[in-house]
Amino acid sequence: MPFTDRRSILRAAAMFPVFAGVITEMASAQTASTDAQKIALDPIETPKDVTRILARYVVTARYGDLPENVRKEGVRTLLNWVGVTIGGSHHQTIDIAVSALGPFSGPPQASILWRRERFDIMNAAFINGVSSHIFDYDDTHLKTIIHPAGPVASAILAMSEMQPVSGRDFLNALILGTETECRIGNAVYPNHFDMGWHITGTAGVFGAAAAAGKLLGLNEQQMVWALGLAASQPVGLRESFGSMNKSFNPGRAASNGIFAALLASKNFTSSNGMIEAKRGWANTISTKQDYKEITDGLGRRYEAVLNSYKPFACGIVLHPAIDAAIQLRNDNKLTADQIERVEIKVNPLVLELTGKKTPRDGLEGKFSVYHAVAIALVEGAGGEKQFSDRAVADPTVTALRKKIIPVITPGIDTAQIDMTIVLKDGRTLHRYIQHAVGSLEVPMSDKALEMKFADLAGGILPGPVIRQAMDLCWNVENLGDAADIAKICVPS
Amino acid sequence: MPFTDRRSILRAAAMFPVFAGVITEMASAQTASTDAQKIALDPIETPKDVTRILARYVVTARYGDLPENVRKEGVRTLLNWVGVTIGGSHHQTIDIAVSALGPFSGPPQASILWRRERFDIMNAAFINGVSSHIFDYDDTHLKTIIHPAGPVASAILAMSEMQPVSGRDFLNALILGTETECRIGNAVYPNHFDMGWHITGTAGVFGAAAAAGKLLGLNEQQMVWALGLAASQPVGLRESFGSMNKSFNPGRAASNGIFAALLASKNFTSSNGMIEAKRGWANTISTKQDYKEITDGLGRRYEAVLNSYKPFACGIVLHPAIDAAIQLRNDNKLTADQIERVEIKVNPLVLELTGKKTPRDGLEGKFSVYHAVAIALVEGAGGEKQFSDRAVADPTVTALRKKIIPVITPGIDTAQIDMTIVLKDGRTLHRYIQHAVGSLEVPMSDKALEMKFADLAGGILPGPVIRQAMDLCWNVENLGDAADIAKICVPS
Repeated sequence: MPFTDRRSILRAAAMFPVFAGVITEMASAQTASTDAQKIALDPIETPKDVTRILARYVVTARYGDLPENVRKEGVRTLLNWVGVTIGGSHHQTIDIAVSALGPFSGPPQASILWRRERFDIMNAAFINGVSSHIFDYDDTHLKTIIHPAGPVASAILAMSEMQPVSGRDFLNALILGTETECRIGNAVYPNHFDMGWHITGTAGVFGAAAAAGKLLGLNEQQMVWALGLAASQPVGLRESFGSMNKSFNPGRAASNGIFAALLASKNFTSSNGMIEAKRGWANTISTKQDYKEITDGLGRRYEAVLNSYKPFACGIVLHPAIDAAIQLRNDNKLTADQIERVEIKVNPLVLELTGKKTPRDGLEGKFSVYHAVAIALVEGAGGEKQFSDRAVADPTVTALRKKIIPVITPGIDTAQIDMTIVLKDGRTLHRYIQHAVGSLEVPMSDKALEMKFADLAGGILPGPVIRQAMDLCWNVENLGDAADIAKICVPS
Repeated sequence: MPFTDRRSILRAAAMFPVFAGVITEMASAQTASTDAQKIALDPIETPKDVTRILARYVVTARYGDLPENVRKEGVRTLLNWVGVTIGGSHHQTIDIAVSALGPFSGPPQASILWRRERFDIMNAAFINGVSSHIFDYDDTHLKTIIHPAGPVASAILAMSEMQPVSGRDFLNALILGTETECRIGNAVYPNHFDMGWHITGTAGVFGAAAAAGKLLGLNEQQMVWALGLAASQPVGLRESFGSMNKSFNPGRAASNGIFAALLASKNFTSSNGMIEAKRGWANTISTKQDYKEITDGLGRRYEAVLNSYKPFACGIVLHPAIDAAIQLRNDNKLTADQIERVEIKVNPLVLELTGKKTPRDGLEGKFSVYHAVAIALVEGAGGEKQFSDRAVADPTVTALRKKIIPVITPGIDTAQIDMTIVLKDGRTLHRYIQHAVGSLEVPMSDKALEMKFADLAGGILPGPVIRQAMDLCWNVENLGDAADIAKICVPS
């Protein structure tokens, strides 16, 4: 086999630079073809068959295999995703995307949450995926800072409206998609993220493809191809942060994943080792590749249980301060006029990232520990409404934020805060936060998730529908038809 | 501005690894937002405004600015693209893609060449882009081995069926798209390709977005965003070579480019420096960034004139041998039974890449210099039909290929060949090829491009339609409606 002597080829390519690219491309094409034949014939022999091992797992894993805590976390992931997606559904970003894509959408197969437009499954998944990330308030796999639900839930909710999908199959696909994207993320994080990739979009497309492929009933080889076509469509650069393009990324990951799975379902081929091969995804897109993160403990260790939810609609560095403020307010029925001053011992990073003393609008409010503590004391919350232009201009809040006194204190890490409120009557109130609510150590309670949902959906969904939608999410495992979740989330 | 002190942020991130990702993401988001405001307000001041300079050029460049040789090469690019796309239009790959995507396509806005199905513009552009690359017989920008027309022509032909586009505007968009993708490719090649990216898909999406955006009449800021959304959707890994996934890549680049341009046309925002910023495309996706390749000489130096076309449906390393064989055959009216033996002095790479003595099928025939020379002598051509299973099994060809004697010869480079045919009557015929037909030095003639077109379209288009379709391409600059090219290329 003369053309497997890669060293000679590369030497020759170096000798004739004008042809180097063509020569190398040609050699790669032939090698890929040969490898593909070999892998297709051989059983799995080495831990290098990463794509195939993952595909086999996704294809064979059943709902009944899922431990109870994994199922529970999947349900919470779903509830949180529906809430944030509804919350973003009438943002300008979504109005723009719907208006741009409407004339090109296929049949009205799937819902766009709480809007009247219906799009084909890929365009609907795109829109819902964008919507879910608009407030940067969605779920987070803290090990990789992937936002898992955006790409995956957006894809499979749309598919559930195209074909019958039971609630159990839906939850199984959601969790398998989450496993797929977070494990692939683990394999390349942090180097991949440090290089500039928005990992939610680059790893998320694998999650969407796996979950969509699961619902389509792909066989192992088709799932290998679906993952390969997903590998060919990474989405998102960190440079886009701060623009609509950031929310674009999980949405496009969702639609790209469906696109990959649909093609694979008809035997549109890819190569067999697209994740792990020499010219494959991980080597091309990252300087770190730890494939054991993908293949070890499949079906025994679940990344899906490590999902977390933001209780507050701002950067995580502010969460301990907001948590402390809300606790002290609620426990003591505080009002702003009682407060003389608020001393907070903080990590230096709090001021570096969120040191804006006089934020001018809602977005700047997210970068102001002064505003965050003041609004939390006044309103007892830290949701999207508390980071609106209205909230930032509120006279009570602007008066109170001048009384917030951060003190950089050694020994306080970014997860912690130490807050002392001095009241005008001379009393002092104190609260130390070791881990804020929403962390893995102090996860949001189901009740807190419901409050977040209601806050996001309030003013969009009618009150009774909020309750019904949450109940459908909690009850997803018993639904005969997962599309009921979409149906309740559109205007009648 | 406390959060612009990136060094402090990174130090802090290092101190608290569990939050490192979140912290860095947050810092980036804020920085991007700040940069975006700044750049939007300032005029172009430094050569670093690469995305904006390119966008401004694409938005302002007019058909009347194009030199005649550039227009001419654009027309040849179009003709070649229509030919290869029709040639691939009934391949199994296309049957699969059409069947997979049909149920999800939007309105029947655009043609799929020589098929009865009509899809929305993005799905149609995808299919035509795939089709154009199936035989790996399309155009090549040799400096980057980008296949320029696939992403760009597929996008704009579809768009021409959605809105009125004159032939001149069509050609202008085709050339501007080609400039965009090839210049961006130049900026990162070869490192980017060496890393594993299929550059036709990763750079191609910019070309498609620029050309589609030009036809949509985007303003400068919208074009900046379109390029940013394109940067967020690179397509294709070299590992996919040898599977249908390779053809997928230019197709998906075409549809992703339209997707980016459509969203930008409604003011869906991206960041302003997505190509050149620290966390932007070039830094993330390549270890080489030569931005002058993008910005220097815009409107004066054209990459589009460097496009080339394959005269033979196989790797470029075989082209000199096929060229020599066809010349000697035609000049001497040779038949196979006259030939005693064929001695060819070749570069070592010819045998390394194409040394298969007994190819078993058409694809293997592309890796056999013995077959390539034999079939060229017998049939006087090296098209897709000459690399079919039929051709490889032809008894005359299999007998003749045993008489081909390659001799590795110092001083013969990969562009060259020295062929001596010894006839049974004792005569010897000799031909030395310095540059094969299809190279930049010996470009395919218009006549040869027509023969290639006719060969690809033969058996698919009716004979008279082949002539009409070629004439429409040659005459594109005078067409009132560029969609005429699509209309002639579908069954009536």
